[in-house]
Amino acid sequence: MADLGRYKIGTPVVELDTPALLLDLAAFERNVARMAAFFADKPATIRPHSKTHKCPQIALRQLEAGAIGITCAKVSEAEVMAGAGIKDILVANQVSGRIKIDRATDLAGQCDLMVAVDDADNVRQLSEACVAKGVVLRVLVEVDVGMGRCGVQPGEPALGLARQVSGSPGLKLEGLMAYEGHLVTVADPDERAERVRAAFNPLADTVALLERNGLPVPIVSSGGTGTYHITGTFPFVTEIQCGSYVLMDNKYRTIQSEFEPSLTLLATVVSRPVPERIVVDAGLKSMTKEFGWPLPLDGEGVSVRYLSEEHGVLDLAESGRFDGRAGDRFRFMPSHCCTTVNLHEAFHVIQDGMLVDIWPIAGRGCSQ
Amino acid sequence: MADLGRYKIGTPVVELDTPALLLDLAAFERNVARMAAFFADKPATIRPHSKTHKCPQIALRQLEAGAIGITCAKVSEAEVMAGAGIKDILVANQVSGRIKIDRATDLAGQCDLMVAVDDADNVRQLSEACVAKGVVLRVLVEVDVGMGRCGVQPGEPALGLARQVSGSPGLKLEGLMAYEGHLVTVADPDERAERVRAAFNPLADTVALLERNGLPVPIVSSGGTGTYHITGTFPFVTEIQCGSYVLMDNKYRTIQSEFEPSLTLLATVVSRPVPERIVVDAGLKSMTKEFGWPLPLDGEGVSVRYLSEEHGVLDLAESGRFDGRAGDRFRFMPSHCCTTVNLHEAFHVIQDGMLVDIWPIAGRGCSQ
Repeated sequence: MADLGRYKIGTPVVELDTPALLLDLAAFERNVARMAAFFADKPATIRPHSKTHKCPQIALRQLEAGAIGITCAKVSEAEVMAGAGIKDILVANQVSGRIKIDRATDLAGQCDLMVAVDDADNVRQLSEACVAKGVVLRVLVEVDVGMGRCGVQPGEPALGLARQVSGSPGLKLEGLMAYEGHLVTVADPDERAERVRAAFNPLADTVALLERNGLPVPIVSSGGTGTYHITGTFPFVTEIQCGSYVLMDNKYRTIQSEFEPSLTLLATVVSRPVPERIVVDAGLKSMTKEFGWPLPLDGEGVSVRYLSEEHGVLDLAESGRFDGRAGDRFRFMPSHCCTTVNLHEAFHVIQDGMLVDIWPIAGRGCSQ
Repeated sequence: MADLGRYKIGTPVVELDTPALLLDLAAFERNVARMAAFFADKPATIRPHSKTHKCPQIALRQLEAGAIGITCAKVSEAEVMAGAGIKDILVANQVSGRIKIDRATDLAGQCDLMVAVDDADNVRQLSEACVAKGVVLRVLVEVDVGMGRCGVQPGEPALGLARQVSGSPGLKLEGLMAYEGHLVTVADPDERAERVRAAFNPLADTVALLERNGLPVPIVSSGGTGTYHITGTFPFVTEIQCGSYVLMDNKYRTIQSEFEPSLTLLATVVSRPVPERIVVDAGLKSMTKEFGWPLPLDGEGVSVRYLSEEHGVLDLAESGRFDGRAGDRFRFMPSHCCTTVNLHEAFHVIQDGMLVDIWPIAGRGCSQ
């Protein structure tokens, strides 16, 4: 039986201490099933990104639903997932520097690890470390498809690095990775699709270039929740790194409305010094704001004035309505699920208004 | 001997895995001593706010240097401090709702706990819970001095609530609390001082009003790092809740230059795909940005273009210089110490470029 800490199964939501992350189990399960159904009849598959939830219980459910493996942002996050028995893990970033390479190659001895590269020196260092430890690391060459963050340029630069990987003992060239992060939240769906297609033409050419040069490209990993239905249907893309679809948030729900927000933040009104001001116990240490304020879900005409560290200060419009007072609950939809989850220890899994499980966010803070 | 995890005492900074929070021990100790020295010859004292560091090792050093007790933001944070043996603790916020009151009154049985109130129903509920458990809770009436967040108005409303507290079994009226949070970062020192003085006149009158009505006001708790030297010299203020002074950051260093930034974030360059773009392994899950971008400390002419979840993307000006490449270290001064610390598990305590201790951030995530 799950360890629910100080709670019992069946505890009503209103009896949970706050701030608390709530996960609507039914909505979550529908999201997992919906994404799995999309890929069920397609050549590509998904390797969901665990940076969103950092929770082995969620990753295992994604695998059960047919995901090919799990994507992680960092080596320490991958350690958590490997510790939960997950075997096929992509760290979708560069693993740079002796200390991190040492940690990654240790992990490669415990699971089937894959990493991204975009630098010749880094490839040499990874190879040397793998040889020294007698492990094999799977490698994707990251290609910049216009985001302008990491990655080599498509075409000859990608071919050159892929050749180096292919010839490096201890490394196994698995293919290419590209992330269209600059396009996943383009508001207009048609514009998003068109720009993604244009961005990936050079990647398609690069896949062909590698194959013409005798290099295998069994994997092309790409995409996110905002583009899974676009990138995931390109014939040369084999895996999608979608993350947010399981939880969703106030930003992503405007991008992909077929998934349901399953994540809410439960807060408590700590003070209502005047009727039009509601102060709750959740601020920037419980909810993030880089994608805008979280969405107030209770009352009518309630807006966020600001979040300080441990307070949320809400305004009630003149025509608005909120009947609660100090001690009552107030819920929000986070504006960015991935960074909000990283502030918390656990998901309180809710069904029919009651706690049915606690899923620890075991990878919280694992940014190394 | 301290548990340094996978590190040994004397490990050079460059051998630490990243992202990692570094605490410059000498600068930290000078900050603690400087604040203590300021109050050594004054009637008021300090009760440092642990929301900044959430670290018992730091709180204990502040107490050793003469602090009268510790201020916490939340009950769960106070539990951590009480667990470290700290006795005199102020939760400088309202404790609202049955569940939180239950938790706070449990804690009042283990330490000398004080909380803030601004609501008559809340006072009644606190009193009932204290009577039921046979504990005594110390109480400060929070007064709004213009911040417009929590607190009753000065004068009669404060007197009325203080009377209620005074007559409530299980509660002990200890005085007043007021936070000039809207003024602590006013850039011009003279303007800051003048506005703080004006804001506190009604509080001075309220202290006198309570005393004229036979209510004791042994404690008036107020102030922060930006106003300790102003608010801390008002004759009616007895305690200052300064927090940031021990760590400082890129925002506070422009406000109070007598304290030294002792906190840095050590990152690693993961990619430098073109000479003018440096990508590091620290993003919004390692550093916060509500007070602006963190300050790059390495190279010359390096600026933050943006932080994504796990990446920091830096631009090198045409005239700038940074000799590092993938695998090399890059340091930042956080822009807001309090929220940045809350993302991390531990301070890596550094002296002469080497690790001398690890101080767990035991209260990290304790927002309940």
